[in-house]
Amino acid sequence: MTKMTAQELELFLHSHFPDVEQRSFHVERVEDGFAEVRMVYHERHLRPGGTISGPSLMTLADTAMYMAVLAMIGPVALAVTTNMNINFLRKPAPADVIGQARLLKLGKRLAVGEVIMYSEGEADPVAHATLTYSIPPDRASI
Amino acid sequence: MTKMTAQELELFLHSHFPDVEQRSFHVERVEDGFAEVRMVYHERHLRPGGTISGPSLMTLADTAMYMAVLAMIGPVALAVTTNMNINFLRKPAPADVIGQARLLKLGKRLAVGEVIMYSEGEADPVAHATLTYSIPPDRASI
Amino acid sequence: MTKMTAQELELFLHSHFPDVEQRSFHVERVEDGFAEVRMVYHERHLRPGGTISGPSLMTLADTAMYMAVLAMIGPVALAVTTNMNINFLRKPAPADVIGQARLLKLGKRLAVGEVIMYSEGEADPVAHATLTYSIPPDRASI
Amino acid sequence: MTKMTAQELELFLHSHFPDVEQRSFHVERVEDGFAEVRMVYHERHLRPGGTISGPSLMTLADTAMYMAVLAMIGPVALAVTTNMNINFLRKPAPADVIGQARLLKLGKRLAVGEVIMYSEGEADPVAHATLTYSIPPDRASI
Repeated sequence: MTKMTAQELELFLHSHFPDVEQRSFHVERVEDGFAEVRMVYHERHLRPGGTISGPSLMTLADTAMYMAVLAMIGPVALAVTTNMNINFLRKPAPADVIGQARLLKLGKRLAVGEVIMYSEGEADPVAHATLTYSIPPDRASI
Repeated sequence: MTKMTAQELELFLHSHFPDVEQRSFHVERVEDGFAEVRMVYHERHLRPGGTISGPSLMTLADTAMYMAVLAMIGPVALAVTTNMNINFLRKPAPADVIGQARLLKLGKRLAVGEVIMYSEGEADPVAHATLTYSIPPDRASI
Repeated sequence: MTKMTAQELELFLHSHFPDVEQRSFHVERVEDGFAEVRMVYHERHLRPGGTISGPSLMTLADTAMYMAVLAMIGPVALAVTTNMNINFLRKPAPADVIGQARLLKLGKRLAVGEVIMYSEGEADPVAHATLTYSIPPDRASI
Repeated sequence: MTKMTAQELELFLHSHFPDVEQRSFHVERVEDGFAEVRMVYHERHLRPGGTISGPSLMTLADTAMYMAVLAMIGPVALAVTTNMNINFLRKPAPADVIGQARLLKLGKRLAVGEVIMYSEGEADPVAHATLTYSIPPDRASI
């Protein structure tokens, strides 16, 4: 069962990560072990050739997975990514990108999940990531 | 559209990889961009503690992905795995393990897919892998 | 043998990726199959807790690997990352981070390398990444 | 400082993993945060085309990393691999393969390391793996 709504997650994200970059992210949907995050298109995400840059997609993957974890364990700012493996599949169009994160495991110490990323309106994914999060022993809430 | 049936794929697998290890694998189901392979339980898959060994799960992931690729491009023995990333999620029980491979991309030169693995009868996955296959330029059939 | 000097690589980087983010990167050293890139410390790299953010380290890994590839094949803007696997090892101090990229393979179609990242003045690495680059068939120079 | 010699590690390996497959492995050298393991050539490691199979290389990577971890923490049978990312770089000749494992991090809960694999007598690596080991909280020795 989720402990935070999409709205609470987005508020948490924006208040704890107040830099410009984070403000492009919107938490669209949260379900049991699942979170969907939209990265709003902005010129600064581009790389030469007019496609969304790799680091922007990696930030989206990281954010979507973080939201999926927090949705289940509550607001714990200190969970940290320990591993990310990302495959870039297609050149993303200059458009919003949607990241759908699904938890594969939520243990006491580690959470593992995958994030599949789509350009708005496209059926084929632009990237796929697998991530591991380390959950702090005390889970100190904020 | 698939170019090979589950039966044809299994025949191809067993005739080209005739060693004992491969004979534990059965191709259960094939769909567009998808293959399901069963690894029949055998004592030699065990590691201390009575769980299925990591290398056995990696072989299952590799085989399931290979079947999903061949189903789409036809019998090409020379496709080779270039990358595998695998997360071990739970200790698998001493039972059959089912690997479900889904292609994320099937390009001319590279195929990327993911394989999720379940112990027979269990709902939570025991492992998850992402693989990249390099497809030879000529696709010489056999 | 290298085809570009550190100075030429840095010039190429800054002229083709003119956004603010890239201007933090300096190409410090280039050798056969090796490139060292410094990410100059800047507040915008931080995440809560005062450590350098994951996406900043991923951008460094990507840039260092790109420089190591270009040093060997010459200025090819269209080489693209197809896979990155990164392990975050220690919380990086708020300081410059040095990324050292070493090519493991430089094929006609794929380059594979690893990047180890250190905080300035520290002996233990803060992150380690493995990357695959797809090299376009024609290698059209710019 | 290492807690086990190469000889002690090999004895531990062969007594805890007594199956045929493991008997091909010899622990050749152990240093601080480093272990070198030889996989003796055997026909059963082959795949069609006469090269060493992927699963054999994955087993070597796993074993070499395990030896590097145990060398530092002592004989703990319950350490488990949680993640492996492996890049297959070149077709390995039908010969012994040497795996050199280096720890990148040895924490209380996680160890991260990389393994580079060479065919006997060759300068270019055949494969490179990054692995994460989960270390049990109690580190119960055997």
